[in-house]
Amino acid sequence: AKGYKGKNRHIEFNGLEELLYREWARYGAFYKYQPIDLIRKYFGEKIGLYFAWLGLYTEFLIPSSVVGIIVFLYGCITMESDIPSKEMCDQEKAFTMCPLCDKSCDYWNLSTACATARASHLFDNPATVFFSIFMALWATMFLEQWKRLQMRLGYFWDLTGLEEEEEHPRPEYETKVRQKKLKNETNKKDNIDEKLTWRDRMPGYLVNVASILFMITLTFSAVFGVTVYRITTAAALSISKNESTRSNVRVTVTATAVIINLVVILILDEIYGAVAKWLTEMEVPKTEKTFEERLILKAFLLKFVNSYAPIFYVAFFKGRFVGRPGSYVYVFDGYRMEECAPGGCLMELCIQLSIIMLGKQLIQNNLFEIGIPYLKMLFRKLKDERTEKKESDSNHSRHPQQWDLDYMLEPFTGLTPEYMEMIIQFGFVTLFVASFPLAPVFALLNNVIEVRLDAKKFVSELRRPDTVREKDIGIWYNILSGIGKFSVIINAFVISVTSDFIPRLVYQYAYSQNGTMHGFINHTLSYFNVSHLKPGTQPDNSQFEQEVVFCRYKDYREPPWSPNQYEFSKQYWSVLSARLAFVILFQNLVMFLSALVDWMIPDIPKDISEQIKKEKSMLVDFFLKEEHEKLKLIESFIMRDKHRNKGETKGEAIPSQYYRYGAMVVT
Amino acid sequence: AKGYKGKNRHIEFNGLEELLYREWARYGAFYKYQPIDLIRKYFGEKIGLYFAWLGLYTEFLIPSSVVGIIVFLYGCITMESDIPSKEMCDQEKAFTMCPLCDKSCDYWNLSTACATARASHLFDNPATVFFSIFMALWATMFLEQWKRLQMRLGYFWDLTGLEEEEEHPRPEYETKVRQKKLKNETNKKDNIDEKLTWRDRMPGYLVNVASILFMITLTFSAVFGVTVYRITTAAALSISKNESTRSNVRVTVTATAVIINLVVILILDEIYGAVAKWLTEMEVPKTEKTFEERLILKAFLLKFVNSYAPIFYVAFFKGRFVGRPGSYVYVFDGYRMEECAPGGCLMELCIQLSIIMLGKQLIQNNLFEIGIPYLKMLFRKLKDERTEKKESDSNHSRHPQQWDLDYMLEPFTGLTPEYMEMIIQFGFVTLFVASFPLAPVFALLNNVIEVRLDAKKFVSELRRPDTVREKDIGIWYNILSGIGKFSVIINAFVISVTSDFIPRLVYQYAYSQNGTMHGFINHTLSYFNVSHLKPGTQPDNSQFEQEVVFCRYKDYREPPWSPNQYEFSKQYWSVLSARLAFVILFQNLVMFLSALVDWMIPDIPKDISEQIKKEKSMLVDFFLKEEHEKLKLIESFIMRDKHRNKGETKGEAIPSQYYRYGAMVVT
Repeated sequence: AKGYKGKNRHIEFNGLEELLYREWARYGAFYKYQPIDLIRKYFGEKIGLYFAWLGLYTEFLIPSSVVGIIVFLYGCITMESDIPSKEMCDQEKAFTMCPLCDKSCDYWNLSTACATARASHLFDNPATVFFSIFMALWATMFLEQWKRLQMRLGYFWDLTGLEEEEEHPRPEYETKVRQKKLKNETNKKDNIDEKLTWRDRMPGYLVNVASILFMITLTFSAVFGVTVYRITTAAALSISKNESTRSNVRVTVTATAVIINLVVILILDEIYGAVAKWLTEMEVPKTEKTFEERLILKAFLLKFVNSYAPIFYVAFFKGRFVGRPGSYVYVFDGYRMEECAPGGCLMELCIQLSIIMLGKQLIQNNLFEIGIPYLKMLFRKLKDERTEKKESDSNHSRHPQQWDLDYMLEPFTGLTPEYMEMIIQFGFVTLFVASFPLAPVFALLNNVIEVRLDAKKFVSELRRPDTVREKDIGIWYNILSGIGKFSVIINAFVISVTSDFIPRLVYQYAYSQNGTMHGFINHTLSYFNVSHLKPGTQPDNSQFEQEVVFCRYKDYREPPWSPNQYEFSKQYWSVLSARLAFVILFQNLVMFLSALVDWMIPDIPKDISEQIKKEKSMLVDFFLKEEHEKLKLIESFIMRDKHRNKGETKGEAIPSQYYRYGAMVVT
Repeated sequence: AKGYKGKNRHIEFNGLEELLYREWARYGAFYKYQPIDLIRKYFGEKIGLYFAWLGLYTEFLIPSSVVGIIVFLYGCITMESDIPSKEMCDQEKAFTMCPLCDKSCDYWNLSTACATARASHLFDNPATVFFSIFMALWATMFLEQWKRLQMRLGYFWDLTGLEEEEEHPRPEYETKVRQKKLKNETNKKDNIDEKLTWRDRMPGYLVNVASILFMITLTFSAVFGVTVYRITTAAALSISKNESTRSNVRVTVTATAVIINLVVILILDEIYGAVAKWLTEMEVPKTEKTFEERLILKAFLLKFVNSYAPIFYVAFFKGRFVGRPGSYVYVFDGYRMEECAPGGCLMELCIQLSIIMLGKQLIQNNLFEIGIPYLKMLFRKLKDERTEKKESDSNHSRHPQQWDLDYMLEPFTGLTPEYMEMIIQFGFVTLFVASFPLAPVFALLNNVIEVRLDAKKFVSELRRPDTVREKDIGIWYNILSGIGKFSVIINAFVISVTSDFIPRLVYQYAYSQNGTMHGFINHTLSYFNVSHLKPGTQPDNSQFEQEVVFCRYKDYREPPWSPNQYEFSKQYWSVLSARLAFVILFQNLVMFLSALVDWMIPDIPKDISEQIKKEKSMLVDFFLKEEHEKLKLIESFIMRDKHRNKGETKGEAIPSQYYRYGAMVVT
């Protein structure tokens, strides 16, 4: 059994397979267009459509990557001239901030957060607003182009007339129906309806809903758990005696927490895949097609929530329930809710996004996709070797046949995981693009590898799948279009609520003395009278250089000397109004533009629609001609018969109905 | 020519026409379903689809009318218990309001506006929020059901396979192409391309865009003109010496202004119809179909803006640029911008809507549709009579023939006006339904008459139109769906910005001492120190019973004793935030629900899709059988021929290609 070693290399390719391998399934071919027609010929339409879709998506990522890089570079270039971060770094002792935790934390100078503030300008600048509008239109354009490409492929692959075949019920469904029938017979009931009603399905549905709710709760608990970990660890580390530990609290905590998040996501992802399958089997869908659709929907829902819950938390909830100095919000006993870094939550969102996206791509897509099949193969090989040794010492010298080699390969388990991976990535590229303009770049890099990796897997690591004819990518299109729509409102909220874009605008046009951003930092910080700190929460033996009377915190609240001290100030409400107005404006503008793009690009390419029209009329002509010739022939036979049989009383009877063909030809 | 009198009665119906008249085209049949199949048989598919659509729309108006009436009744019943209007009416001398105009107006008690406040509760209550969500879903449901009905009709009328026919260019287009060709030939240019490029079309497009912009500006100027009329007349009337004139200023001005608006709308509507046609001809579209589509789009755009501009003005702009006491906004010289009545702008919006909607329906649809054709006929009859008298005294006694009578009828000018009328009505029913829940009721009443009126017109007053096969209602569907989407955001803004719904909620949950609405009126009124009135704007010889130090006005501004006197107060911004948050919530909720409804109702009814599938397989079977029989026949002929010709060296040559039919049958 030594022939197995380096098996992938030694497979005896047949011609098509070899061509595919050479032209497509290796990294060296990354710059080439995919040979879609060959793929379709070898794997069938369904897999052909997947690779065509993946190719178009990857192609579309190129312009968005370019624009994303330009937006990022714009951030780099304008970083130096950004007045707020400059003010924050320059005016070293201007702002004495309130302590970040009770007792053990001291007052601190805002200028120490100078670096984060500068870094956050990279992602928090006006160009990202433009970029998220661009990406929303990009998503619409991509979907439109896909519709057109699908039409074109459908035409060339002769799928336009493909009807959904008569769908056979799944065996599981038939078993259930038979069981019901038997039960009804024993109960001596008359009504023998041979299908499952909603009464039969009710328990399955209930289990489904309950399980999905439970799973979503589980995801949220995981996110909450990580938050608690972050809060407690931060508190624990900040009372540490070690100076260097204390100074790196934020970095340590953030990094470890994100990694925990990532691990949780990866584990739950696997579990959810299995759960979705189990739940769908519980539902007993009638046909294979509905089974697949429901499985996909459930798996998507669970995996989507799983992948994005921590990101949503950072984007929209973190740092919003902190309370204020003197009246903090506590979880459990004495742990303050966590705040965002002084540069704003956007920076943290960006870190979270990039780590989860990159980690997921690297670990799940590449490591899992290459590693686990390899391990499985190794395991099977070992098992086989052991059994083989016992069995057959006689034909020891026989060279393994091609079918043995092919059987050694992994079985094909469907395209769902491939699509799912890409759809979740599409979510990263569109949903939070306002906070992470480099997402398309990473997606592009991943996909260039992914295409070839998948190709290699399909060509040389999996058993050749049964070819399936399929007209379109089915429910995945709906999911993509749903994500595209959802991304508009999410981006609107990220820009208006998470980033500092709106407060800056409001300051510049409503509060600034001279229309510049000078004084913005001062404007966003409220005053707090340190004597109002609750007893027991003041910093223990403060070593801050000055005597502190007022400390500052980031919020729009009334100062201590106002009659309504520490209430939300008028600025708070006016900024909030501006934020919400921006959401409405952004959402409706982008939706309108998307509708316009959708309306302007016809779903069927013009050449294809003309071609189809032409072919239809040609087909009709051809049929008429063919028919005409046949009838003429029959007519000629009849005429000749008549001629010959003249005088004869009895010939072979020609069914009278055929005379009408002759009549038709004559008229 | 006496036979012409009472012509409509005396028309000799052929059988179908008589049946249609009896079963459909009279008011007595209003409760019956329309005999759609008969209509289609007599008028063709295009007109059949119109009446099917109109029927479905009218049917759908029934539930919405019922819900609308319930919502209205809810307003009536809760009117007594509405605390704010009660407070306004009961506390007679609690609120001294600032004068409504300079000099000639006096201070006044808010309790005098008690009646309007109570009336506005009819339309400004929480039930309207529910109703506008209901109507948004109603619109989606209606469109879905129409898609299904269209499918069903398409199936039964055998339109499913209807391909768009080869479209012939319009003669105007061909003329233009020929002109271009001639010009190119005289200029001795080589390129003879036989179509118009964008260069040839450029002037047409430019004229189009310019004209449409001009027309829209015209509409806005008309609205502005009426506003100016309202402001100046109000000012003029309020300095009148006549007591009764002065007390009825608002009613007089509003009523006359709305009537002027209505007249302007009616006149411009006719003009715009002609302009749209002229502009489309200028564009030289290639085919009849594109001509119709572009005409419809243009006419719709112009008529939509025309019908709704005054309503949009009242809903979103009126009373928002008034300024504040002491710093009013003036137009021209010394005329203050108009304010809404103390009950809020919603009441005025409701009046505006109902008068324009009812007036348009009554005058345009019924008077114009019945009256103008009648006048035209009368005019033609007179002319004909005169010419006839001169011409033919000889055959004076001859009874007019059917073709004479039919020629006497009006020519058919297309369905566009009929659709347009209904689409604009659909706009009234959906766009501002939050402010006028009775709109569906009025629409329903109108349509019950409209169906029969149109029917009568088509059967007995117009020449029988050429039947046109058409698969769907074309661009009208897109316009309907566009209105449905637009209505969501419009209703969101009407509820949040025009009505008092949000301020009430905010007061109840954020400012009220005991969670009730007591004190709401006081909360919405700001204080103004009368000594701050600009010199020359104080009331001349005030006859108000008390000495006035502070007067009140409806706005959220700081009181005179605040350091930032008369600036927008914190309440203003918090209410504004709540309003905008409501818009976001409402819009996204309704859009989500609509998408859900859209997704849950399949586009093709299940029975139809099954039927189609079945028929397709039957058709294939039939063809195969037919083919098989024919081939068998040919084969039998061939066999017989061979048999007979045995020994004969030469028979009639049978083309060899036909042998393969035989082979096909044998295998």
